[in-house]
Amino acid sequence: MRTNAREEVLIITHDVQIALGEMTTGDGVCTIVTPHTTCALSVNENADPDVPLDVTRALRAMIPAVAFRHGEGNSDAHLLSTMIGTSLTWPYRSGKLILGSWQGIYFIELDGPRTRRVNVYVT
Amino acid sequence: MRTNAREEVLIITHDVQIALGEMTTGDGVCTIVTPHTTCALSVNENADPDVPLDVTRALRAMIPAVAFRHGEGNSDAHLLSTMIGTSLTWPYRSGKLILGSWQGIYFIELDGPRTRRVNVYVT
Amino acid sequence: MRTNAREEVLIITHDVQIALGEMTTGDGVCTIVTPHTTCALSVNENADPDVPLDVTRALRAMIPAVAFRHGEGNSDAHLLSTMIGTSLTWPYRSGKLILGSWQGIYFIELDGPRTRRVNVYVT
Repeated sequence: MRTNAREEVLIITHDVQIALGEMTTGDGVCTIVTPHTTCALSVNENADPDVPLDVTRALRAMIPAVAFRHGEGNSDAHLLSTMIGTSLTWPYRSGKLILGSWQGIYFIELDGPRTRRVNVYVT
Repeated sequence: MRTNAREEVLIITHDVQIALGEMTTGDGVCTIVTPHTTCALSVNENADPDVPLDVTRALRAMIPAVAFRHGEGNSDAHLLSTMIGTSLTWPYRSGKLILGSWQGIYFIELDGPRTRRVNVYVT
Repeated sequence: MRTNAREEVLIITHDVQIALGEMTTGDGVCTIVTPHTTCALSVNENADPDVPLDVTRALRAMIPAVAFRHGEGNSDAHLLSTMIGTSLTWPYRSGKLILGSWQGIYFIELDGPRTRRVNVYVT
């Protein structure tokens, strides 16, 4: 998929559900992974679009003012990716993700715009 | 369960263990999930009650002073929930959680007091 | 393993791979856990050694200036361990971890130097 800004939350619940549904109609736990190092995965509110915007703005404001050495200038993105995480384990029933009423799956871009990939695994 | 303050750590190891023990006496990995978007799950020190208090206070102090748009006024809770995470994967043997000497399972309330739910899944 | 500084990132991909390879040559998802409460596990860049150094320095700078009560004086380590997490779920194929080109497994020491342990579980 394609991200559009340096920091951005894309709600990817539907895409993950489609990938999961192609693999199983049973019950279990899936593992959702992104193979990159300057983005992250999480689960949070899917209802009010102000929530992902607020989260994005606050994450940027949490970056401390330290001198980073890494030449690409995106150590802030590596930091947040390390903290939030790039893998997510989530239960499903009859091939459908078991999500709370307000939950959606967040793909959090931290060094975009870029082309990104997310993989879903079932065992 | 019922939380008692806006920010609070409840140590739910015993409750998770009971739920797990009702499902299995074997070996494996369980997935612990909360279906809400303003709380989180983690694992940390179970011995000195000052640790959860310190963590609670420090989390609150980490919230950056940005203008949040979300009308409910709890974007700080969504931010920390997104960062810490709402699912947790943990191994067990003979139906018992394999925890280090000092480890307990933390339910981290970030927008209480509320009634909350945590689900445990085995495959 | 032995850590060498108060805060340090050790890239443990190779050690995890060896432990995994001794258990399986199949496909699946493994759970990687550290039984301590003042360190953490994550996945991030394995290429430029400045990235783990930048992450380490930034994590330390994110600790808020609040009065901690916990007598051991390492509440900052408990805080970051709680936020980053002590368990990690990751897929493997033919007994080999499926990692992106730049990804390595981070063991993040937050209260060293200490002797630490990481366990790998397959189901």
